[in-house]
Amino acid sequence: MSSAAVGYAKENASRFLDDLKTLLRIPSVSTTPEHKGDVEKAANWVAAELKRIGMEHVDVLHGMGHPLVYADWLHAPGKPTVLCYAHYDVQPPDPLDEWVTPPFEPTERNGNLYARGAVDDKGQLVLQLKALEALLKKDGKLPLNVRVLYEGEEEVGGEHIAAFVREHPDRLKSDFALISDTELFAPELPTLTVGLRGMVYTELEVRGAKTDLHSGMYGGAAPNPFVALAQIIAGLKDRDGKILIPGFYDDVRKPSDDELKAWRSLPFDEEEYREKEVGASKLVGEKGYTVIERTWARPTLDVHGIVGGFIGAGAKTVIPAKATAKVSMRLVPDMTPEKSFRQYKDYVEKIKPEGVTVDVRLIHSGEPSVIRTDNPYVKAATQALKKVWGKDTVFIRSGGSIPIVGDFEKHLKIPSVMMGFGLPDDGLHAPNEKFHIPNFHRGIESLIVFFDELGK
Amino acid sequence: MSSAAVGYAKENASRFLDDLKTLLRIPSVSTTPEHKGDVEKAANWVAAELKRIGMEHVDVLHGMGHPLVYADWLHAPGKPTVLCYAHYDVQPPDPLDEWVTPPFEPTERNGNLYARGAVDDKGQLVLQLKALEALLKKDGKLPLNVRVLYEGEEEVGGEHIAAFVREHPDRLKSDFALISDTELFAPELPTLTVGLRGMVYTELEVRGAKTDLHSGMYGGAAPNPFVALAQIIAGLKDRDGKILIPGFYDDVRKPSDDELKAWRSLPFDEEEYREKEVGASKLVGEKGYTVIERTWARPTLDVHGIVGGFIGAGAKTVIPAKATAKVSMRLVPDMTPEKSFRQYKDYVEKIKPEGVTVDVRLIHSGEPSVIRTDNPYVKAATQALKKVWGKDTVFIRSGGSIPIVGDFEKHLKIPSVMMGFGLPDDGLHAPNEKFHIPNFHRGIESLIVFFDELGK
Repeated sequence: MSSAAVGYAKENASRFLDDLKTLLRIPSVSTTPEHKGDVEKAANWVAAELKRIGMEHVDVLHGMGHPLVYADWLHAPGKPTVLCYAHYDVQPPDPLDEWVTPPFEPTERNGNLYARGAVDDKGQLVLQLKALEALLKKDGKLPLNVRVLYEGEEEVGGEHIAAFVREHPDRLKSDFALISDTELFAPELPTLTVGLRGMVYTELEVRGAKTDLHSGMYGGAAPNPFVALAQIIAGLKDRDGKILIPGFYDDVRKPSDDELKAWRSLPFDEEEYREKEVGASKLVGEKGYTVIERTWARPTLDVHGIVGGFIGAGAKTVIPAKATAKVSMRLVPDMTPEKSFRQYKDYVEKIKPEGVTVDVRLIHSGEPSVIRTDNPYVKAATQALKKVWGKDTVFIRSGGSIPIVGDFEKHLKIPSVMMGFGLPDDGLHAPNEKFHIPNFHRGIESLIVFFDELGK
Repeated sequence: MSSAAVGYAKENASRFLDDLKTLLRIPSVSTTPEHKGDVEKAANWVAAELKRIGMEHVDVLHGMGHPLVYADWLHAPGKPTVLCYAHYDVQPPDPLDEWVTPPFEPTERNGNLYARGAVDDKGQLVLQLKALEALLKKDGKLPLNVRVLYEGEEEVGGEHIAAFVREHPDRLKSDFALISDTELFAPELPTLTVGLRGMVYTELEVRGAKTDLHSGMYGGAAPNPFVALAQIIAGLKDRDGKILIPGFYDDVRKPSDDELKAWRSLPFDEEEYREKEVGASKLVGEKGYTVIERTWARPTLDVHGIVGGFIGAGAKTVIPAKATAKVSMRLVPDMTPEKSFRQYKDYVEKIKPEGVTVDVRLIHSGEPSVIRTDNPYVKAATQALKKVWGKDTVFIRSGGSIPIVGDFEKHLKIPSVMMGFGLPDDGLHAPNEKFHIPNFHRGIESLIVFFDELGK
């Protein structure tokens, strides 16, 4: 029984938070090459912690990209084996000037811990570490068999872990995966995520003249790659948010009536979401779908930035030779990244204006997924959450992408339990990302009780 | 008679070029605040040269923005007074990695001098200095009265000189202006520019959500400022280059039949221009107009860059809170910057998609202008060019903007002679900007002979 471990977690709450801060101070940004050393440093810190708490076969696996961290503890014969997943890399912190306190100096304010990676995903990785530490230190053993696989390139496509899972299913043999990288639907509402959107991230490069030209001399005759990009982007998505790529929606699976009914009963107010969370004058998107349907069960397309041209202060009268847009699409079951990318690329070629050439590059992709809720691991999770939070669990989807869930399903043939403790306003990928500190501690307790349930 | 001065210029050709190189080494980029000191340094170098060659009342005038440099020599009673204009500031050198040799280390290659500002406009400013030097040093006097007014913020809108001209017409009293900031229509073809496009340079800022958002969580519901900007830009200009702003073309004056006939006789091959100068697969622009008409006598709209979002290497899945496009329009007679900007701003507000707010800012502007060719200064210029180049002068317009020409006309009531010696492939505003060295020397000779003609 894990009440001793829960007690240990409570006694050590302050140190546990300090350990998280130590990890948050390492700027392990995986998306830009200059932080490669920091990502390595974060991997080594995680590996050292796994050793310290008593996990076995701890290994930092180098291969392509950033390292994986593996560990196991397999001394509970007859009990299930969980594969614990989280990631120790983070998004870039820019725009830096919008952070109230620096992104890699974790700071407590109003019951929250502010730092890049606080909730996505270092806080949730440390949740797992601390649940295992409490159980091992207090009980001297774990109630079930545990494998741990942490990655350092989730934010940049996770190719290393995908290849590892594909090539070494034997080394990861487990009964289910525990993914700690999601959020509660609302504060105080225990939540399991059972659906994810997939993703296709691309670069769309447009070239006009062979060199930058003076816009006075050549304006009116030379193709402008920014104008061409604008025409292409405006041709990809209409003003109602409908994607115009032929065949794009063909494989979209409608949510079941039960799901739609459950979603309608969730505590969600579109007007409050618009005002408080998004802060825009109006929400956008496809007509005839609720916001929840639009973000969970419909594909979409976004532009993240456009590289090239003059972006300094003041004025430069140039027709740039090229411009490159970062464009991504989110996919839903049963779409596939391969088919969607092909449709997109073909359509861009078709609608590009005259005078320019386009180069459409795939940067990374991930499969969408939906998890069945009738397996024993999901059931044990809901029981644990009920004990700790005192409420029934809600099942939601996420508009985000965790491609590893699809890889685990495909190569290990195991389902995932996505139990996360972020909050909707935690600011993933944005300035002033935070983790609500009480959720950090209750998350540790939830995992201890969950593991204990499975060991019964 | 100026043959002595011409001889002096030939004897000193090598030193004259060295002096130009000295000025080119000063990175007097006026468009970005970090080069303020360099712009000042260039102004001081120019003032020192004016003193050295014997000009009087040399003054570096501080006021708004970057300094003006003034000088005069007014000891030719009964002779006309010329107001010599050029600018000593330059465009930013980016993209730096496309320069064969560094932009501020002037380098001779294939008979050309490569450097930022080589042709625009330091080379042409030094032309004037050297013509005056040759005349003053050899003849001990000038054949006409001369005022000099050089500015250091032409590339950023020239507000200081515009205000100075408006407020001190008495201090600049002259019969005509000599503008050295244009080019030959073709190598070996003496050219006077008699028309310029005006310009309205703007920033178009689009804001969606109050903060950057995760494109997984919010994609499909949160407005994307880049997509909104694309829709607005695509709405401003159609695929045939026609500007869709209501009323935009209302005040466009058609070129005269004589002008159109003269333009048709110019040595210009659209296919060669497309391939050699622009290097694009196809030229763009309004149907029914030649390239010369499209760039000289029709207004246009270009996008120079879009600020905001993620532009690093790799991927970041963000819906940025805002995006700002740098958009400019070139105007032709009889359009006015005030009216065109108002039409543009109103139309942007009208076509912006739902969910975003827009802020349209005017960065700078300039009037379009057309010069009459039947004045004595233009006549003397064509005579001088005939003597030096052995050919009849062609009259062209330029697609670029030199707002000071309009200011001289409006406040000093004087016409401008735009006599410049750049070549069409000199790469204004682009990497590897150059000045053809024989044109530098023949330009000096042309000005000596021109001044002498006027002093007869």
